[in-house]
Amino acid sequence: MRIITISREFGSGGRELGKRLAEQLGFNYFDREIITEIANKTELDENYISMILEKGLSSYPIHIGQTFSGIVTVNHTPIEVLIAQQKILKELAEKGDAVFIGRSADAILKDFNPLNIFVYADMDYKLARCKQKGEVDINLKDKVLCRKIKNVDKGRYRNHNLLGNSKWGDRKSYHLMVNTTGFKIEDIVPSVKEYAVKFFEKNGK
Amino acid sequence: MRIITISREFGSGGRELGKRLAEQLGFNYFDREIITEIANKTELDENYISMILEKGLSSYPIHIGQTFSGIVTVNHTPIEVLIAQQKILKELAEKGDAVFIGRSADAILKDFNPLNIFVYADMDYKLARCKQKGEVDINLKDKVLCRKIKNVDKGRYRNHNLLGNSKWGDRKSYHLMVNTTGFKIEDIVPSVKEYAVKFFEKNGK
Repeated sequence: MRIITISREFGSGGRELGKRLAEQLGFNYFDREIITEIANKTELDENYISMILEKGLSSYPIHIGQTFSGIVTVNHTPIEVLIAQQKILKELAEKGDAVFIGRSADAILKDFNPLNIFVYADMDYKLARCKQKGEVDINLKDKVLCRKIKNVDKGRYRNHNLLGNSKWGDRKSYHLMVNTTGFKIEDIVPSVKEYAVKFFEKNGK
Repeated sequence: MRIITISREFGSGGRELGKRLAEQLGFNYFDREIITEIANKTELDENYISMILEKGLSSYPIHIGQTFSGIVTVNHTPIEVLIAQQKILKELAEKGDAVFIGRSADAILKDFNPLNIFVYADMDYKLARCKQKGEVDINLKDKVLCRKIKNVDKGRYRNHNLLGNSKWGDRKSYHLMVNTTGFKIEDIVPSVKEYAVKFFEKNGK
Protein backbone atom coordinates (compact mmCIF):
# COMPACT_ATOMS: atom_id res chain seq x y z
CA MET A 1 0.00 0.00 0.00
CA ARG A 2 1.30 3.45 -0.88
CA ILE A 3 0.16 5.88 1.80
CA ILE A 4 0.67 9.65 1.77
CA THR A 5 -0.14 11.72 4.83
CA ILE A 6 -0.55 15.47 4.68
CA SER A 7 -0.10 17.45 7.87
CA ARG A 8 -0.67 21.15 7.49
CA GLU A 9 -0.93 24.53 9.08
CA PHE A 10 -4.49 25.82 9.01
CA GLY A 11 -5.03 27.90 5.87
CA SER A 12 -1.89 26.77 4.07
CA GLY A 13 -3.72 24.88 1.31
CA GLY A 14 -2.60 21.44 2.49
CA ARG A 15 -6.03 19.95 1.92
CA GLU A 16 -6.22 21.18 -1.68
CA LEU A 17 -2.68 19.95 -2.30
CA GLY A 18 -3.60 16.51 -0.94
CA LYS A 19 -6.79 16.31 -2.96
CA ARG A 20 -5.08 17.25 -6.21
CA LEU A 21 -2.24 14.84 -5.47
CA ALA A 22 -4.70 11.99 -4.87
CA GLU A 23 -6.49 12.79 -8.14
CA GLN A 24 -3.29 12.85 -10.15
CA LEU A 25 -1.91 9.67 -8.61
CA GLY A 26 -5.25 7.86 -8.70
CA PHE A 27 -5.17 7.32 -4.93
CA ASN A 28 -8.06 7.23 -2.48
CA TYR A 29 -8.55 10.47 -0.57
CA PHE A 30 -9.60 10.64 3.07
CA ASP A 31 -10.31 13.86 4.87
CA ARG A 32 -13.71 14.59 6.40
CA GLU A 33 -14.54 10.96 5.55
CA ILE A 34 -12.47 9.91 8.55
CA ILE A 35 -14.76 11.82 10.89
CA THR A 36 -17.86 10.37 9.26
CA GLU A 37 -16.53 6.85 9.66
CA ILE A 38 -15.77 7.43 13.34
CA ALA A 39 -19.24 8.88 13.80
CA ASN A 40 -20.77 5.80 12.23
CA LYS A 41 -18.75 3.48 14.45
CA THR A 42 -19.27 5.33 17.72
CA GLU A 43 -22.69 6.87 17.08
CA LEU A 44 -21.30 10.19 18.24
CA ASP A 45 -21.93 13.59 16.76
CA GLU A 46 -19.48 14.53 13.96
CA ASN A 47 -18.85 17.97 15.42
CA TYR A 48 -18.02 16.43 18.74
CA ILE A 49 -15.54 14.07 17.11
CA SER A 50 -13.98 16.91 15.15
CA MET A 51 -13.53 18.82 18.34
CA ILE A 52 -11.83 15.92 20.13
CA LEU A 53 -9.51 15.37 17.18
CA GLU A 54 -8.73 19.06 16.81
CA LYS A 55 -8.37 20.12 20.40
CA GLY A 56 -6.88 17.02 21.92
CA LEU A 57 -7.55 15.28 25.17
CA SER A 58 -6.12 18.08 27.23
CA SER A 59 -9.20 20.24 26.75
CA TYR A 60 -11.63 17.39 27.40
CA PRO A 61 -13.14 18.31 30.78
CA ILE A 62 -13.99 21.89 29.80
CA HIS A 63 -15.76 21.02 26.59
CA ILE A 64 -17.65 18.07 27.92
CA GLY A 65 -19.09 20.20 30.67
CA GLN A 66 -20.03 23.04 28.38
CA THR A 67 -21.67 21.44 25.45
CA PHE A 68 -21.75 17.73 25.13
CA SER A 69 -22.67 16.25 28.46
CA GLY A 70 -25.88 14.87 27.05
CA ILE A 71 -24.27 13.06 24.18
CA VAL A 72 -21.30 11.39 25.79
CA THR A 73 -22.07 8.09 27.42
CA VAL A 74 -19.87 5.99 29.67
CA ASN A 75 -18.98 3.90 26.65
CA HIS A 76 -17.82 6.81 24.51
CA THR A 77 -15.18 8.94 26.13
CA PRO A 78 -12.77 11.07 24.10
CA ILE A 79 -10.17 8.35 24.60
CA GLU A 80 -12.49 5.95 22.82
CA VAL A 81 -12.85 8.42 19.98
CA LEU A 82 -9.08 8.38 19.62
CA ILE A 83 -9.05 4.59 19.70
CA ALA A 84 -11.76 4.50 17.04
CA GLN A 85 -9.70 6.99 15.00
CA GLN A 86 -6.70 4.66 15.06
CA LYS A 87 -8.77 1.64 14.07
CA ILE A 88 -10.55 3.45 11.25
CA LEU A 89 -7.42 5.03 9.80
CA LYS A 90 -5.83 1.59 9.58
CA GLU A 91 -8.94 0.09 7.98
CA LEU A 92 -9.01 2.87 5.38
CA ALA A 93 -5.28 2.45 4.68
CA GLU A 94 -5.83 -1.28 4.06
CA LYS A 95 -8.28 -0.44 1.26
CA GLY A 96 -5.49 0.68 -1.08
CA ASP A 97 -3.17 3.54 -2.03
CA ALA A 98 -4.39 6.68 -0.33
CA VAL A 99 -3.81 10.27 0.72
CA PHE A 100 -4.85 11.13 4.28
CA ILE A 101 -5.37 14.69 5.41
CA GLY A 102 -4.51 15.47 9.01
CA ARG A 103 -5.88 13.47 11.93
CA SER A 104 -2.34 12.43 12.89
CA ALA A 105 -2.31 9.79 10.16
CA ASP A 106 1.48 10.10 9.90
CA ALA A 107 1.89 8.82 13.45
CA ILE A 108 -1.00 6.35 13.45
CA LEU A 109 -0.09 4.74 10.12
CA LYS A 110 3.65 4.56 10.64
CA ASP A 111 3.70 0.77 10.13
CA PHE A 112 2.62 1.44 6.53
CA ASN A 113 5.85 3.44 5.96
CA PRO A 114 3.89 6.40 4.65
CA LEU A 115 5.26 9.39 2.80
CA ASN A 116 4.75 12.19 5.31
CA ILE A 117 4.33 15.69 3.90
CA PHE A 118 3.97 18.92 5.85
CA VAL A 119 2.41 21.98 4.24
CA TYR A 120 2.82 25.48 5.66
CA ALA A 121 2.80 29.16 4.72
CA ASP A 122 3.30 32.68 5.98
CA MET A 123 0.50 34.11 8.10
CA ASP A 124 -0.50 36.74 5.50
CA TYR A 125 -1.05 34.04 2.90
CA LYS A 126 -3.01 31.82 5.30
CA LEU A 127 -5.16 34.76 6.35
CA ALA A 128 -5.97 35.73 2.75
CA ARG A 129 -6.67 32.12 1.84
CA CYS A 130 -8.99 31.54 4.81
CA LYS A 131 -10.97 34.68 3.96
CA GLN A 132 -11.22 33.75 0.30
CA LYS A 133 -12.37 30.21 1.11
CA GLY A 134 -14.91 31.47 3.64
CA GLU A 135 -13.32 29.35 6.36
CA VAL A 136 -13.33 32.20 8.84
CA ASP A 137 -15.70 34.99 9.82
CA ILE A 138 -14.47 37.89 7.71
CA ASN A 139 -16.11 40.39 10.02
CA LEU A 140 -13.48 39.64 12.62
CA LYS A 141 -10.32 41.72 12.80
CA ASP A 142 -7.14 40.27 11.29
CA LYS A 143 -5.56 40.12 14.73
CA VAL A 144 -8.39 37.94 15.99
CA LEU A 145 -8.28 35.75 12.89
CA CYS A 146 -4.53 35.26 13.27
CA ARG A 147 -5.05 34.12 16.81
CA LYS A 148 -7.73 31.67 15.68
CA ILE A 149 -5.47 30.27 12.98
CA LYS A 150 -2.65 29.84 15.48
CA ASN A 151 -4.99 28.16 17.95
CA VAL A 152 -6.07 25.53 15.44
CA ASP A 153 -2.40 24.71 14.84
CA LYS A 154 -1.72 24.59 18.57
CA GLY A 155 -4.46 21.97 18.90
CA ARG A 156 -2.97 19.95 16.07
CA TYR A 157 0.46 20.18 17.64
CA ARG A 158 -0.81 19.09 21.03
CA ASN A 159 -2.92 16.28 19.69
CA HIS A 160 -0.26 14.88 17.40
CA ASN A 161 2.35 14.82 20.12
CA LEU A 162 0.18 12.54 22.26
CA LEU A 163 0.57 9.79 19.70
CA GLY A 164 4.25 9.00 19.58
CA ASN A 165 7.76 10.28 19.44
CA SER A 166 7.42 12.49 16.40
CA LYS A 167 6.67 16.19 16.76
CA TRP A 168 4.12 18.09 14.67
CA GLY A 169 5.83 20.62 12.36
CA ASP A 170 9.36 19.42 13.10
CA ARG A 171 11.37 18.43 10.05
CA LYS A 172 12.38 15.06 11.53
CA SER A 173 8.75 13.93 11.38
CA TYR A 174 8.43 14.49 7.61
CA HIS A 175 9.96 13.60 4.28
CA LEU A 176 8.99 16.79 2.53
CA MET A 177 7.97 20.19 3.91
CA VAL A 178 6.44 22.58 1.43
CA ASN A 179 5.93 26.30 1.90
CA THR A 180 2.96 27.36 -0.24
CA THR A 181 3.26 31.13 0.31
CA GLY A 182 2.28 32.99 -2.84
CA PHE A 183 1.64 29.86 -4.88
CA LYS A 184 -1.43 28.64 -6.65
CA ILE A 185 -1.64 25.18 -5.08
CA GLU A 186 -2.01 23.49 -8.46
CA ASP A 187 1.46 24.76 -9.40
CA ILE A 188 3.08 22.89 -6.53
CA VAL A 189 1.45 19.53 -7.25
CA PRO A 190 3.86 18.34 -10.00
CA SER A 191 6.88 18.84 -7.75
CA VAL A 192 5.33 16.95 -4.83
CA LYS A 193 4.04 14.22 -7.12
CA GLU A 194 7.54 13.75 -8.56
CA TYR A 195 9.00 13.36 -5.06
CA ALA A 196 6.22 10.91 -4.13
CA VAL A 197 6.81 8.69 -7.15
CA LYS A 198 10.54 8.48 -6.41
CA PHE A 199 9.86 7.91 -2.72
CA PHE A 200 7.71 4.85 -3.36
CA GLU A 201 10.10 3.57 -6.04
CA LYS A 202 13.04 3.59 -3.62
CA ASN A 203 10.89 1.74 -1.09
CA GLY A 204 10.07 -0.88 -3.72
CA LYS A 205 6.38 -0.01 -3.85
CA MET B 1 18.68 37.40 -10.48
CA ARG B 2 17.39 33.98 -9.52
CA ILE B 3 19.19 32.85 -6.38
CA ILE B 4 18.84 29.45 -4.70
CA THR B 5 20.39 28.83 -1.30
CA ILE B 6 20.94 25.34 0.04
CA SER B 7 21.26 24.90 3.79
CA ARG B 8 21.91 21.37 4.90
CA GLU B 9 22.67 18.97 7.66
CA PHE B 10 26.21 17.61 7.38
CA GLY B 11 26.17 14.35 5.38
CA SER B 12 22.66 14.77 3.97
CA GLY B 13 23.77 15.24 0.36
CA GLY B 14 22.78 18.90 0.20
CA ARG B 15 25.91 19.87 -1.66
CA GLU B 16 25.38 17.22 -4.35
CA LEU B 17 21.74 18.24 -4.67
CA GLY B 18 22.77 21.89 -5.11
CA LYS B 19 25.45 21.06 -7.64
CA ARG B 20 23.12 18.93 -9.75
CA LEU B 21 20.40 21.56 -9.52
CA ALA B 22 22.80 24.28 -10.71
CA GLU B 23 23.89 22.09 -13.65
CA GLN B 24 20.33 21.33 -14.70
CA LEU B 25 19.17 24.93 -14.41
CA GLY B 26 22.32 26.38 -15.96
CA PHE B 27 23.00 28.46 -12.84
CA ASN B 28 26.35 29.44 -11.32
CA TYR B 29 27.38 27.29 -8.40
CA PHE B 30 29.18 28.62 -5.32
CA ASP B 31 30.42 26.42 -2.55
CA ARG B 32 34.10 26.21 -1.61
CA GLU B 33 34.57 29.11 -4.05
CA ILE B 34 33.13 31.42 -1.41
CA ILE B 35 35.95 30.56 0.97
CA THR B 36 38.58 31.04 -1.74
CA GLU B 37 37.19 34.46 -2.57
CA ILE B 38 37.26 35.52 1.08
CA ALA B 39 40.83 34.21 1.34
CA ASN B 40 41.82 36.29 -1.67
CA LYS B 41 40.21 39.40 -0.23
CA THR B 42 41.52 39.08 3.30
CA GLU B 43 44.79 37.25 2.65
CA LEU B 44 43.84 34.81 5.39
CA ASP B 45 44.28 31.06 5.36
CA GLU B 46 41.35 29.15 3.80
CA ASN B 47 41.19 26.67 6.67
CA TYR B 48 40.99 29.49 9.15
CA ILE B 49 38.14 31.10 7.23
CA SER B 50 36.31 27.76 7.02
CA MET B 51 36.65 27.41 10.74
CA ILE B 52 35.23 30.85 11.45
CA LEU B 53 32.30 30.25 9.12
CA GLU B 54 31.62 26.75 10.49
CA LYS B 55 32.08 27.30 14.20
CA GLY B 56 30.78 30.80 14.54
CA LEU B 57 31.98 33.72 16.56
CA SER B 58 31.08 32.12 19.85
CA SER B 59 34.07 29.78 19.71
CA TYR B 60 36.44 32.52 18.58
CA PRO B 61 38.66 33.04 21.65
CA ILE B 62 39.36 29.33 22.15
CA HIS B 63 40.40 28.66 18.58
CA ILE B 64 42.43 31.77 18.11
CA GLY B 65 44.43 30.88 21.18
CA GLN B 66 44.93 27.31 20.12
CA THR B 67 45.93 27.45 16.52
CA PHE B 68 45.83 30.71 14.69
CA SER B 69 47.38 33.35 16.85
CA GLY B 70 50.22 33.80 14.40
CA ILE B 71 48.00 34.34 11.41
CA VAL B 72 45.36 36.70 12.73
CA THR B 73 46.33 40.33 12.58
CA VAL B 74 44.61 43.32 14.10
CA ASN B 75 43.10 44.06 10.72
CA HIS B 76 41.58 40.61 10.26
CA THR B 77 39.42 39.51 13.14
CA PRO B 78 36.75 36.86 12.75
CA ILE B 79 34.21 39.65 12.58
CA GLU B 80 35.97 40.98 9.51
CA VAL B 81 35.84 37.52 7.96
CA LEU B 82 32.09 37.61 8.44
CA ILE B 83 31.91 41.07 6.92
CA ALA B 84 33.99 39.89 3.96
CA GLN B 85 31.64 36.90 3.65
CA GLN B 86 28.64 39.20 3.35
CA LYS B 87 30.30 41.39 0.78
CA ILE B 88 31.52 38.48 -1.34
CA LEU B 89 28.24 36.61 -1.28
CA LYS B 90 26.48 39.71 -2.59
CA GLU B 91 29.09 40.24 -5.30
CA LEU B 92 28.75 36.63 -6.43
CA ALA B 93 24.95 36.91 -6.45
CA GLU B 94 25.18 39.99 -8.67
CA LYS B 95 27.00 37.93 -11.30
CA GLY B 96 23.83 36.08 -12.31
CA ASP B 97 21.50 33.19 -11.46
CA ALA B 98 23.20 31.01 -8.88
CA VAL B 99 23.02 28.22 -6.33
CA PHE B 100 24.82 28.91 -3.04
CA ILE B 101 25.76 26.12 -0.66
CA GLY B 102 25.73 26.97 3.03
CA ARG B 103 27.59 29.95 4.47
CA SER B 104 24.29 31.45 5.63
CA ALA B 105 23.56 32.69 2.11
CA ASP B 106 19.81 32.49 2.82
CA ALA B 107 20.11 35.16 5.51
CA ILE B 108 22.80 37.26 3.85
CA LEU B 109 21.14 37.36 0.42
CA LYS B 110 17.59 37.92 1.61
CA ASP B 111 17.24 41.12 -0.42
CA PHE B 112 17.57 38.97 -3.55
CA ASN B 113 14.40 37.07 -2.52
CA PRO B 114 16.17 33.74 -2.83
CA LEU B 115 14.58 30.34 -2.92
CA ASN B 116 15.73 28.83 0.36
CA ILE B 117 16.00 25.05 0.50
CA PHE B 118 16.92 22.92 3.50
CA VAL B 119 18.26 19.39 3.02
CA TYR B 120 18.34 16.85 5.84
CA ALA B 121 18.33 13.11 6.55
CA ASP B 122 18.29 10.46 9.26
CA MET B 123 21.55 9.95 11.15
CA ASP B 124 22.08 6.42 9.75
CA TYR B 125 21.93 7.73 6.19
CA LYS B 126 24.25 10.65 6.96
CA LEU B 127 26.72 8.34 8.67
CA ALA B 128 26.79 5.91 5.74
CA ARG B 129 27.13 8.75 3.25
CA CYS B 130 29.98 10.41 5.14
CA LYS B 131 31.88 7.11 5.29
CA GLN B 132 31.31 6.41 1.62
CA LYS B 133 32.43 9.90 0.60
CA GLY B 134 35.52 9.70 2.82
CA GLU B 135 34.43 12.84 4.66
CA VAL B 136 35.12 11.29 8.06
CA ASP B 137 37.79 9.06 9.58
CA ILE B 138 36.25 5.59 9.21
CA ASN B 139 38.47 4.22 11.97
CA LEU B 140 36.41 6.14 14.49
CA LYS B 141 33.45 4.48 16.21
CA ASP B 142 29.96 5.32 14.94
CA LYS B 143 29.14 6.98 18.23
CA VAL B 144 32.08 9.36 17.82
CA LEU B 145 31.20 10.04 14.18
CA CYS B 146 27.59 10.83 15.11
CA ARG B 147 28.81 13.33 17.64
CA LYS B 148 31.08 14.94 15.06
CA ILE B 149 28.22 15.18 12.55
CA LYS B 150 25.98 16.75 15.18
CA ASN B 151 28.71 19.20 16.15
CA VAL B 152 29.10 20.48 12.59
CA ASP B 153 25.36 21.14 12.51
CA LYS B 154 25.47 22.85 15.88
CA GLY B 155 28.11 25.22 14.50
CA ARG B 156 25.94 25.94 11.46
CA TYR B 157 22.94 26.55 13.68
CA ARG B 158 24.85 28.91 15.94
CA ASN B 159 26.50 30.78 13.12
CA HIS B 160 23.34 31.23 11.09
CA ASN B 161 21.37 32.54 14.01
CA LEU B 162 23.81 35.39 14.48
CA LEU B 163 22.76 36.83 11.15
CA GLY B 164 19.11 37.66 11.49
CA ASN B 165 15.72 36.61 12.65
CA SER B 166 15.49 33.32 10.84
CA LYS B 167 16.50 30.10 12.56
CA TRP B 168 18.63 27.37 10.95
CA GLY B 169 16.60 24.20 10.35
CA ASP B 170 13.26 25.77 11.25
CA ARG B 171 10.59 25.49 8.56
CA LYS B 172 9.76 29.20 8.68
CA SER B 173 13.22 29.98 7.29
CA TYR B 174 12.74 27.90 4.13
CA HIS B 175 10.50 27.37 1.14
CA LEU B 176 11.22 23.68 0.74
CA MET B 177 12.67 21.15 3.17
CA VAL B 178 13.75 17.86 1.66
CA ASN B 179 14.56 14.67 3.53
CA THR B 180 17.03 12.66 1.45
CA THR B 181 17.03 9.49 3.59
CA GLY B 182 17.41 6.41 1.39
CA PHE B 183 17.45 8.39 -1.85
CA LYS B 184 20.01 8.60 -4.58
CA ILE B 185 20.39 12.38 -4.70
CA GLU B 186 19.94 12.48 -8.47
CA ASP B 187 16.43 11.08 -8.04
CA ILE B 188 15.37 14.06 -5.94
CA VAL B 189 16.64 16.73 -8.33
CA PRO B 190 13.65 16.77 -10.75
CA SER B 191 11.21 17.41 -7.91
CA VAL B 192 13.24 20.27 -6.46
CA LYS B 193 13.88 21.72 -9.90
CA GLU B 194 10.15 21.71 -10.62
CA TYR B 195 9.44 23.60 -7.39
CA ALA B 196 12.24 26.07 -8.19
CA VAL B 197 10.93 26.85 -11.67
CA LYS B 198 7.44 27.53 -10.31
CA PHE B 199 8.86 29.57 -7.44
CA PHE B 200 10.64 31.97 -9.76
CA GLU B 201 7.68 32.10 -12.14
CA LYS B 202 5.33 33.23 -9.37
CA ASN B 203 7.89 35.88 -8.39
CA GLY B 204 7.99 37.10 -11.97
CA LYS B 205 11.61 36.07 -12.52
